[in-house]
Amino acid sequence: MSNPSLLILPGDGIGPEVMAQVRRIIDWFGDKRDLKIDVSEDLVGGAAYDAHGTPLHDDTMAKAQEVDAVLLGAVGGPKYDVLDFSVKPERGLLRLRKEMDLYANLRPAQCFDALADFSSLKRDVVAGLDIMIVRELTSGIYFGEPRGIFEEGNERVGINTQRYTESEIERVARSAFELARRRGNKVCSMEKANVMESGILWREVVQKVHDEEYADVELSHMYADAGAMQLCRWPKQFDVIVTDNLFGDLLSDAAAMLTGSLGMLPSASLGAPMANGRPKAMYEPVHGSAPDIAGQGKANPIACILSFAMALRYSFDQGAEADRLEAAVAKVLEDGVRTADLLGEEGVEPVSTEGMGDAVLAAL
Amino acid sequence: MSNPSLLILPGDGIGPEVMAQVRRIIDWFGDKRDLKIDVSEDLVGGAAYDAHGTPLHDDTMAKAQEVDAVLLGAVGGPKYDVLDFSVKPERGLLRLRKEMDLYANLRPAQCFDALADFSSLKRDVVAGLDIMIVRELTSGIYFGEPRGIFEEGNERVGINTQRYTESEIERVARSAFELARRRGNKVCSMEKANVMESGILWREVVQKVHDEEYADVELSHMYADAGAMQLCRWPKQFDVIVTDNLFGDLLSDAAAMLTGSLGMLPSASLGAPMANGRPKAMYEPVHGSAPDIAGQGKANPIACILSFAMALRYSFDQGAEADRLEAAVAKVLEDGVRTADLLGEEGVEPVSTEGMGDAVLAAL
Ligand SMILES: CC(C)[C@H](C(=O)O)[C@@H](O)C(=O)O
Ligand SMILES: CC(C)[C@H](C(=O)O)[C@@H](O)C(=O)O
Repeated sequence: MSNPSLLILPGDGIGPEVMAQVRRIIDWFGDKRDLKIDVSEDLVGGAAYDAHGTPLHDDTMAKAQEVDAVLLGAVGGPKYDVLDFSVKPERGLLRLRKEMDLYANLRPAQCFDALADFSSLKRDVVAGLDIMIVRELTSGIYFGEPRGIFEEGNERVGINTQRYTESEIERVARSAFELARRRGNKVCSMEKANVMESGILWREVVQKVHDEEYADVELSHMYADAGAMQLCRWPKQFDVIVTDNLFGDLLSDAAAMLTGSLGMLPSASLGAPMANGRPKAMYEPVHGSAPDIAGQGKANPIACILSFAMALRYSFDQGAEADRLEAAVAKVLEDGVRTADLLGEEGVEPVSTEGMGDAVLAAL
Repeated sequence: MSNPSLLILPGDGIGPEVMAQVRRIIDWFGDKRDLKIDVSEDLVGGAAYDAHGTPLHDDTMAKAQEVDAVLLGAVGGPKYDVLDFSVKPERGLLRLRKEMDLYANLRPAQCFDALADFSSLKRDVVAGLDIMIVRELTSGIYFGEPRGIFEEGNERVGINTQRYTESEIERVARSAFELARRRGNKVCSMEKANVMESGILWREVVQKVHDEEYADVELSHMYADAGAMQLCRWPKQFDVIVTDNLFGDLLSDAAAMLTGSLGMLPSASLGAPMANGRPKAMYEPVHGSAPDIAGQGKANPIACILSFAMALRYSFDQGAEADRLEAAVAKVLEDGVRTADLLGEEGVEPVSTEGMGDAVLAAL
């Protein structure tokens, strides 16, 4: 059997820094665990624009379609704000999601026990929190047509279109129910069915998939605004949340921040199964490119390291090795090793991005 | 001069209960402060549907257009979930907003000092918090066409349209800058300009209005997902936030919940100035119809009482009387009077909705 293949796209901002630590960890698994991965690396986002005038070169897109998994750092930065919409760094990321058809974005909002005090929420509200947001990632207002800025009379109008077909809703609902069965067996679906017809269809289809295929899972529905409130009030009421692309964008970011562990949270974007039975997949940290601290060696590489752990589990069938890596990270946190985003405890000196990489390697 | 006119629409759920307390307070101002208001009352939402088969009768709409201000309780409830979209309770509220052209929805997220401990956030994160979210209320995906559920091939597709014209953005931006000048002089505008063209136009127009008319106000822009994060992390960084109808729906609800004072927060929806120079206006509590506690005499009437205080200030030119009413509410809270939504302190027995009304009247 040939080695599994991984395409690394460090991207912009702190992307390259955090990815450098992941490279060291990949090497460790190759050396010490005889887990050989064929790693290739390429450009995405602003970095690709700088080199090629496009945020994702066609060759890179083609490579992404062929590998077993993609690991992405982050895209975007103020330097690229002036670019035309069509070549902004984000378009590279969105093209990957769309063309690889990665419709299910799994975003855990998990509170690491050692870090519960970093949350702006009270300890008892977040300690032990472990929810999974399943965000639809290839449709909705992110991709719907018509879209653009048009002349109308003597002024301009900005237009975007929210669009969901039944089958798009069905497949992401299935992902959510499948996940729920392996967790707390509870799904809460969020939309604005009281205001949007696309939300009415969403609610109806999720309910139908539930009734026909997953009646054993507990399903509830909530308006997205109430969902935002409840996430802030008592997030532990949730197990799996399934929602559309745009609501998922806001709700998952809010949930991630609530945990106090933003620099720690990985994500997986999964598509349909490939010939080998495993899903098309891209892994990324939940945090963004953080241009304000980029290049200073301050960034926390753990979210990206844990994204690689997710790749080990979901794409490379190496659940035991994923456990090993996650345990190493947990150990490092318990030992009190902290990057600059995690300061506040009495007498703790921050380690650098590389220092955190060292610590994880040592724990391995 | 004739008396100012107020149309009261109690609506559904806890709406009628909390409004009954406001009626007592209106009477008090008539008797004790010689502030006579011509009050009329009518139906909206499910209550209107039960009576007329429509969530807002045309006669009610016509009355709303004529009065100086509308005071609304809340709409919606599970009983009406089965209704067709076109006659759902929410359509009554949305028709009022749209036909009165109430484009600027002012939603304070304020933390009452006596209540800071009710927040799920840590005290220092929320104590003293006072931000104002200005939400565009008459356009965007709430009203854009085309919309609906359509057949396409052999499946259905749900469609909604986000649409903003330059002038729609301009006028709500002006509202935000005007407000900022009377507060902390800072506006943060939120959209998804990295993903949506309507967000690009939004950002551009807000910037233009700023540069041409409000260069003295500090303006920043933030993506709405980052905005959701930052609201959860350190909300005190904000003064005025201006955003579109849908983002405003989620962000203002999250912000309100963060304060721990959800049952306390009023809102104002303002339109263009009428002949008398004052804006068309509707006032409502931020909380919803809370069907789970409706009819039990448990609801907190303060949000609705403070909505009336906003009407005194913005529609009736009675700033001093508004101050008086707000001071009475603050006094009651300091005295430790609590409805059931505000329990948790050692040895505090909750008062009923009416009991809270009594306490505010006594403090007046
Ligand atoms: C970078 C941006 C295009 C992206 C999104 O809006 O989806 C990001 O916010 C995310 O959540 O992954
Ligand atoms: C009741 C509903 C239609 C409404 C909205 O979505 O605008 C509510 O959530 C609000 O924020 O006032």
